[in-house]
Amino acid sequence: MPELRKDPIVGRWVIISTERARRPSDFASEPVRLAGGDCPFCPGSEELTPPEILAFRPSGSPPNTPGWSLRVVPNKFPALRIEGDIEPSGEGPFDRMNGVGAHEVVIETTDHLASLSTLPVERVADVLLAYRERLADLKKDPRFEYVLVFKNHGEAAGASLEHPHSQLIATPIIPVMVEEELAGAARYYERKERCVWCDVLRHERRGRRRLVAEADGFVAVAPFAPRFPFETWILPARHRSAFEESGVEELRGLATLLGDFLRRMSRVLRDPPYNFMLHTAPLRDSALEHFHWHLEVIPKLTRVAGFEWGSGFFINPVPPEDAAAALRESVG
Amino acid sequence: MPELRKDPIVGRWVIISTERARRPSDFASEPVRLAGGDCPFCPGSEELTPPEILAFRPSGSPPNTPGWSLRVVPNKFPALRIEGDIEPSGEGPFDRMNGVGAHEVVIETTDHLASLSTLPVERVADVLLAYRERLADLKKDPRFEYVLVFKNHGEAAGASLEHPHSQLIATPIIPVMVEEELAGAARYYERKERCVWCDVLRHERRGRRRLVAEADGFVAVAPFAPRFPFETWILPARHRSAFEESGVEELRGLATLLGDFLRRMSRVLRDPPYNFMLHTAPLRDSALEHFHWHLEVIPKLTRVAGFEWGSGFFINPVPPEDAAAALRESVG
Repeated sequence: MPELRKDPIVGRWVIISTERARRPSDFASEPVRLAGGDCPFCPGSEELTPPEILAFRPSGSPPNTPGWSLRVVPNKFPALRIEGDIEPSGEGPFDRMNGVGAHEVVIETTDHLASLSTLPVERVADVLLAYRERLADLKKDPRFEYVLVFKNHGEAAGASLEHPHSQLIATPIIPVMVEEELAGAARYYERKERCVWCDVLRHERRGRRRLVAEADGFVAVAPFAPRFPFETWILPARHRSAFEESGVEELRGLATLLGDFLRRMSRVLRDPPYNFMLHTAPLRDSALEHFHWHLEVIPKLTRVAGFEWGSGFFINPVPPEDAAAALRESVG
Repeated sequence: MPELRKDPIVGRWVIISTERARRPSDFASEPVRLAGGDCPFCPGSEELTPPEILAFRPSGSPPNTPGWSLRVVPNKFPALRIEGDIEPSGEGPFDRMNGVGAHEVVIETTDHLASLSTLPVERVADVLLAYRERLADLKKDPRFEYVLVFKNHGEAAGASLEHPHSQLIATPIIPVMVEEELAGAARYYERKERCVWCDVLRHERRGRRRLVAEADGFVAVAPFAPRFPFETWILPARHRSAFEESGVEELRGLATLLGDFLRRMSRVLRDPPYNFMLHTAPLRDSALEHFHWHLEVIPKLTRVAGFEWGSGFFINPVPPEDAAAALRESVG
């Protein structure tokens, strides 16, 4: 059973995931390579994944057989386990909790060689719809406080399988990075009675120096203080706190801008490895005046080293104004 | 001029380091490889580095010529610049500050192929002495609030040169990770009137399951909630808050344990890439009952991916009890 453990100094929780445990000697070589031949996410290999939780397939088509265009399945090597109740316990100065949670994989397409930047907008919208459906469903489980949707694209960004997929992890506590955003945004709102992301969007749409693209009610913008070169945030232009309340039309608008942005990034940086992470409001408190959901995209271009791990300061060699200009000017 | 910028939501500062700026197209290929032929840190190449700030060399031996056993030089591509006063400014909802600081390199030995795990204890003690001397010297500069000493070993851990070296960066603000430790430790002290690291050490030396090694007044221990597999902290057994107040005998004790630990890690994980980071008290407030200096060592074995970047939660596949046992049982 995986375990959640809390650092007694800074209060940071970590997941000790024994399900994925490896022997010390396993670390001496490079991490696993991307699977070559037998891809468990390709059509015809449905029996290689745990049974599907959700699939987009023609009505009448039986589950866990070909015919689908998108599948959501439990992660075969989950970081957290779906079974059990949350049981906090202690050991001397330390706190722990059993590792209850959900860890799911969204298989975005049948096409092993596609990606969100090459799929048609309808297929990208389907992926976003799958996120929404899973968020709404996991919200019903009272054990969970948060669902983080994320994507690892490319081996250097942590993908262990090449077939296009994203993931979500539901956790019994609100992740510290979301907590920090919530707290910072609440402080800003108290002072100004405005959402900080709404203010940032207003400022950036006026100045345009960090604006990357706008379409159909969504904006892609380089943050003023990006941790990573070419870090980009995608946000709804109007204030929205809960992603799972997005309408189908909104998801299609997001799919348009996301596809456009990923193609720009792919052209400028030649299909870089990247991660994206969806920050939406917590499950139990999702109608918030001060929180604005957003998707953070970080291409993996630089190495994070001792200074960053020791300080929390990131050194970014590319001013966001330069990154935004390069992305803005890239034409397909 | 580099720039410090603050995120308006979470208050995280980043360094936009234009000194190291690259064009977008430079990111499309892999990061720089380790230098092959002309190593700027080898004896005889002294003119390839900026003039030395400190060197251990026989008396009478002229600076910036061979004869040294250790040199400290300014980083040729500094993340922050030493010249100028601190000037905060604003832009709409954003805060910035010019990037004033010091960025130095400690060239640990003349031997290009050595490492801290192969150098004799006297040489390792010299490296630690150089850290102490630079900390004490930079403390005199009223512009700086903190000095972070760190090491990147191996390309995957961010080293761009192979020759054994470590670095230090002096910053005009206290890094957020140190702030968080200070705040958490202060809360613990308020409640218990004891240093949290002293309590952790007492607990670990009694239980021994996460104890890696002890020698000469220092302890190496796997933290209860490690972010990374085989993460290890090295601390003085007695309460000490400021590294720069260490005596020569203490530094020799630390050199003994550090060398022993690095050899264990190298045997168990076959010379892995790693980082270490020294957390000592802030320069302006260094005699603290609640802060205990420590060296954090993190071998680079797993990839940090979307879930970690989006949540701040780390997934660690190796329980620290298993890591400590493997390191403890490794015999040279």
